[in-house]
Amino acid sequence: MAVADAAALRDELQRIGKQARRASDSLRSMSSTVKNAALLEIARRLRESAPLLKKENAKDLAAGQAKGLRGAMLDRLELTDARIEGMAVGLETVAALPDPVGEIESQVVRPNGLRIAQIRQPLGVVGIIYESRPNVTADAAGLCLKSGNACVLRGGSEAIHSNLAIAKIFVDGAVSAEAPEHAVQLIGTTDRAAVGEMLRLDRYIDVIVPRGGKQLIERIYDESRIPVVAHLDGVCHTYVHEGADLAMAKSICLNAKLQRPSVCNAMETMIVDAAVAEAFLPDVAAAFGEAGCELRGCERTREHIECAEATEDDWTAEYLDTILAIKVVDSLEDAIAHINEFGSHHSDAIVTDSYSASERFLDAVDSATVYVNASTYFTDGFMFGLGAEIGISTSKLHCRGPMALKELTSLKYVIRGSGQIRQ
Amino acid sequence: MAVADAAALRDELQRIGKQARRASDSLRSMSSTVKNAALLEIARRLRESAPLLKKENAKDLAAGQAKGLRGAMLDRLELTDARIEGMAVGLETVAALPDPVGEIESQVVRPNGLRIAQIRQPLGVVGIIYESRPNVTADAAGLCLKSGNACVLRGGSEAIHSNLAIAKIFVDGAVSAEAPEHAVQLIGTTDRAAVGEMLRLDRYIDVIVPRGGKQLIERIYDESRIPVVAHLDGVCHTYVHEGADLAMAKSICLNAKLQRPSVCNAMETMIVDAAVAEAFLPDVAAAFGEAGCELRGCERTREHIECAEATEDDWTAEYLDTILAIKVVDSLEDAIAHINEFGSHHSDAIVTDSYSASERFLDAVDSATVYVNASTYFTDGFMFGLGAEIGISTSKLHCRGPMALKELTSLKYVIRGSGQIRQ
Repeated sequence: MAVADAAALRDELQRIGKQARRASDSLRSMSSTVKNAALLEIARRLRESAPLLKKENAKDLAAGQAKGLRGAMLDRLELTDARIEGMAVGLETVAALPDPVGEIESQVVRPNGLRIAQIRQPLGVVGIIYESRPNVTADAAGLCLKSGNACVLRGGSEAIHSNLAIAKIFVDGAVSAEAPEHAVQLIGTTDRAAVGEMLRLDRYIDVIVPRGGKQLIERIYDESRIPVVAHLDGVCHTYVHEGADLAMAKSICLNAKLQRPSVCNAMETMIVDAAVAEAFLPDVAAAFGEAGCELRGCERTREHIECAEATEDDWTAEYLDTILAIKVVDSLEDAIAHINEFGSHHSDAIVTDSYSASERFLDAVDSATVYVNASTYFTDGFMFGLGAEIGISTSKLHCRGPMALKELTSLKYVIRGSGQIRQ
Repeated sequence: MAVADAAALRDELQRIGKQARRASDSLRSMSSTVKNAALLEIARRLRESAPLLKKENAKDLAAGQAKGLRGAMLDRLELTDARIEGMAVGLETVAALPDPVGEIESQVVRPNGLRIAQIRQPLGVVGIIYESRPNVTADAAGLCLKSGNACVLRGGSEAIHSNLAIAKIFVDGAVSAEAPEHAVQLIGTTDRAAVGEMLRLDRYIDVIVPRGGKQLIERIYDESRIPVVAHLDGVCHTYVHEGADLAMAKSICLNAKLQRPSVCNAMETMIVDAAVAEAFLPDVAAAFGEAGCELRGCERTREHIECAEATEDDWTAEYLDTILAIKVVDSLEDAIAHINEFGSHHSDAIVTDSYSASERFLDAVDSATVYVNASTYFTDGFMFGLGAEIGISTSKLHCRGPMALKELTSLKYVIRGSGQIRQ
């Protein structure tokens, strides 16, 4: 890229950042009535514009095919009528949720009479960097608008026509409902250098939420001067304790692995207590086999079932596929140690009827979401009753697990006095 | 540095990181009884070791003098009996505070019967990078221990003997109370490259809290792969509204500027409404003059008082000294716009008896702490009733304002089921 182009790109990103900051200044005090009206108007316009959206999407699909994208990638890229309806319903759902902005989290009166409150406020400007699926444009922008945040969106180049069309509907709908024009801005260039420039806008953007592959997220961690809330991967475990109801354990393990293997909350490693290995493994392995799921077991697993041998790499693998690693352990403590060492702190479950084992597991497993007797596949904003999610955090700062409206806010100290000074 | 040295340093930091992670695994479920006993034992040993601490501190002071450190720097470095007593009392205060770990923030029962709770948990491992003042070693380590976090401390090279002595007392006291040996680790080398290695320990350290000058913090933002909670600077404002009680305004402004000019919550710019400029400025300027405070005013300020002319740089300056910038504005909105553009989002106050002006100011000023009719000098953990603070955040993610026990935790989802699977 020529020096002049680099300078022009930097100027463009600076302009976008400034506009976002200004928009966030008015969004901060905008009433829920206006924000909800904007969301409903945008939903209406998305439905009305389905033919246009599909026409723009067709350009992306054609370019993708020409570039040789595979089936799953093309599928993620496609905007069907059902997916457009899904975006509209998503916005209506978000409009119906309570507005977290302005909630008082706490208030104390200090001995000197100062009334110190903590009040929930928008983060400010949220930068979202994502790949392929164009519906993220509407989902993320809707959550940001409702929580009073301006957003700067950077979608994948393969979805640029679809994203631009969705963003235009968003802006037109927001403006017609008297929300600020720059509440939602999509970076129009597909130049890869734009991401680098975006990550340096620490004066204007308050948080970066990346959604995408590990490589993208690693790059963002490396380059960003802006705080990042991200999930790196989902290496989720289910531990079948010696006190488990084995029928329940089978049902939960099959669901956690097979219901949707391609998502981050799917189980990747099943841990089985040695005391129930013989009673459990052959039966569940047969069921996995019937479903076409490849099994890779540790040495002790292979004493009970025939399967490939798991290597060290399998314990940290996020297959996102019909492959399952299996480990046999001697104790609850060994299971906990394995999960804390090799897992990704996303979602982990124990199946047991032992009260003390369940409490110990919940305490000691250091993950964003820990379960007793349920499938890890439940970890998402919809299932948790949050209405939607902008991502799932596996870091510990700010928020863990699904990131939705409340997680797009933080607490500001508001202090009312009557002339107090400090000695 | 030779390649072999660099590799040895990296190994050493990796070892420290691993030890901290392991310690945090046991601290996570450690009872308040044990943590409080450790804090009280450490306080006792600090008092008992005052002669030793002063002896070690004398080495740092001598080295500092030899290096030509100035008075204020030497003063910050010195461990007096009062400061040692202050560290001990600080630990006793923290021991007496409620333990945030295990608090249930919320619990819902979903239609499918899943009980979804959010429970407060330690962040894990906290890395603290700080300069000169050795008492930070005890303050920060005490807050981390109480909140169930392991910590890795990196103090300034000028305080290395003092820091090592305090850390040793900390570790000995903790171990004697059956807390883990590696709950608190001080990096023993003064090699500058150790900071770089520390900032790459993203597998082991969950958050970096820097305390120090702007240059240090900028470097950390640039290099860290670990999330950072920091305050860059404290450019705090007091806005004297046309509806202010001018006697109260004078008292608050003098306190905010002069009570302790060297701290981040001191006022750096005073904003005065044009409607009260003539009634207020000459009187308050005389009082500032008597106190030896230099004034730098905008053009309109200089219509009312004699003072130096403020330049654009003065609006963003953190003087930390007896210098005050003054700006006259036409309206509340102009004051808000100035604060949001030039301030550092730390602490800002309005003095007014107008209800609508106070509400608008509290809503619209985008700072960690906003005040009506009180001095910004109140912004700190002690004054807010938090017992202590590990730093003051001016970023919006995770926490804003004083960072104490609660801010050293985050919320983990704990989900109890009875065999639920998801369709």
